[in-house]
Amino acid sequence: MAVIVPFESPSGASIDGLVGLVAADMERVNTTILSRTGSDVTMIPEVANHLISSGGKRLRPMLTLAMAHLTGYPGDGHIKLAAAVEFMHTATLLHDDVVDESEMRRGKLSARMLWGNEASVLVGDFLLGQAFRMMVEVGSLRALDILSAAAATIAEGEVMQLAAAKNTATTEDEYLAVIRGKTAELFAAACEVGPVLADRPKAEQAASRSFGMNLGIAFQLVDDVLDYGGKAAKLGKNIGDDFREGKITLPVVLAFRRGSDSERAFWIKSLERGEISDHDLDHAIGLMNKHRALEDTISRAHHYGAMAVDALALFPASPMKAALGQVVAFCLARSH
Amino acid sequence: MAVIVPFESPSGASIDGLVGLVAADMERVNTTILSRTGSDVTMIPEVANHLISSGGKRLRPMLTLAMAHLTGYPGDGHIKLAAAVEFMHTATLLHDDVVDESEMRRGKLSARMLWGNEASVLVGDFLLGQAFRMMVEVGSLRALDILSAAAATIAEGEVMQLAAAKNTATTEDEYLAVIRGKTAELFAAACEVGPVLADRPKAEQAASRSFGMNLGIAFQLVDDVLDYGGKAAKLGKNIGDDFREGKITLPVVLAFRRGSDSERAFWIKSLERGEISDHDLDHAIGLMNKHRALEDTISRAHHYGAMAVDALALFPASPMKAALGQVVAFCLARSH
Repeated sequence: MAVIVPFESPSGASIDGLVGLVAADMERVNTTILSRTGSDVTMIPEVANHLISSGGKRLRPMLTLAMAHLTGYPGDGHIKLAAAVEFMHTATLLHDDVVDESEMRRGKLSARMLWGNEASVLVGDFLLGQAFRMMVEVGSLRALDILSAAAATIAEGEVMQLAAAKNTATTEDEYLAVIRGKTAELFAAACEVGPVLADRPKAEQAASRSFGMNLGIAFQLVDDVLDYGGKAAKLGKNIGDDFREGKITLPVVLAFRRGSDSERAFWIKSLERGEISDHDLDHAIGLMNKHRALEDTISRAHHYGAMAVDALALFPASPMKAALGQVVAFCLARSH
Repeated sequence: MAVIVPFESPSGASIDGLVGLVAADMERVNTTILSRTGSDVTMIPEVANHLISSGGKRLRPMLTLAMAHLTGYPGDGHIKLAAAVEFMHTATLLHDDVVDESEMRRGKLSARMLWGNEASVLVGDFLLGQAFRMMVEVGSLRALDILSAAAATIAEGEVMQLAAAKNTATTEDEYLAVIRGKTAELFAAACEVGPVLADRPKAEQAASRSFGMNLGIAFQLVDDVLDYGGKAAKLGKNIGDDFREGKITLPVVLAFRRGSDSERAFWIKSLERGEISDHDLDHAIGLMNKHRALEDTISRAHHYGAMAVDALALFPASPMKAALGQVVAFCLARSH
């Protein structure tokens, strides 16, 4: 699941620093993305560009560029790897929309509403194939290993979510395992390949991976909160989507565990059996507020955000390191 | 699209020779397949093994093993590449079933009927990820290049088919471009990686690729014919599926081009507009027989079969080469 990341948040935290530092590289990434969605089969660039050009902020490829810079990589393999990361992400979104039967994505009709489920599945597969081609061209077997393992882990996390769907007894640990797979793993891999390309020591590779993993977890937790109280217009999706789809996210896990028997009956009725009537979303949000479930999900997000920042401690101070700290603050501040 | 390949055909052509020659390797491939579908997320092995253990004859991985043998490869990288090829094929089948809304696959309910479209999409993605992990483990960048390009080309062929679907004006050339992508490319890649692993001269790599490509085209053309006159029980699918789905295959292309105005109106009504009543499939088969469309599709298949056999000419005579010739004869004989 992804949301549009607004460039500014009320707290002043911003990703503008990062955007500025990687701007020149990002232009090359965008050119690569454009050329690699090309095909004589016109439906492919149509579907791919509908989503790719729809205003996502390309946070994941920016992270690949940033970590390559931070660790002093002098080559240009990071351009293709960053494009590959964005293709993997886009393929996941296309397939997610089919899985979730989503009607909207980033404030526009989803690709499957415009071209059908078939096109979403197949163009997703095409982008995944193109992503691997680009990785192969870069020629780093270690980067290939990281990104191909991530592809399998992401799918595994999504299946886990499917199996956990509508199960209100899901524990916080089980839920964390889901989001580590479906969201955080790609952040982690996107970051890890930077120092891998630069052939830096294992400690820097591990630190970069840890930064990405914890940032990804924090990002997803804030996303979960926004689904119950966010600014739908900025998000490009509707409040309550998770609720209507019976998705078990951390706010639900906390509200369910802390609730009374009759409250648990409400969660089971609405999420497991899908019996939802007009004011049930309001009631759900009321229960979350009563049990501080949204607030505490944000606290948890801050915990992972802090781990992300600390993971970068072994790198010397630099504008890029400061910008990456700002990215963490920005992701957390989205919830205000 | 794939069918169960029966081990024997009335003409006596058989794949038993190939099966015998690769039996020891194939056992290792099967062990690899089993271990790589493993996951703590139980739905993954369930869905994957439902299809993988459902009686497909694993022709594609056998081709990888065969070409590695034929070109004298002494290592064991071909085991993982063969398993990767089977995973790519299985992922394609899982996604195809979602795209085609198929209810049956190899004589059993399709995975999407048992676990839903969601699981079929995501487990397909997982298998694709695992396929790439195995390729990376083998460590041949050239083999990775071939197989990742194949992944993109297969998806491209499927999208092309989607765009051509229900368009009775499709030419034979356009149709050939579709099946080169969606079917023959994986046969070609499966064969090509054998001599690539063995580090054989370009001529042998090209010959192996050509063998696979032409065998794949012949295989698909026979498959198209079987959909209008095959033995549904052996195929594990129903006669007329392509017709009901409005799929434009070579028998349709030929019957349409050779037909009268009123016959073309029939094809447009049934395939483009999907207005199909009780006896229309019989009528369609009648028109195909009248214009020798099925017979001539088989003739075309023999043409590609002959090209496949000739592609192997530069290899010295051996039991493996003879067995590969038998595979071509067998694929063609399925139509009798």
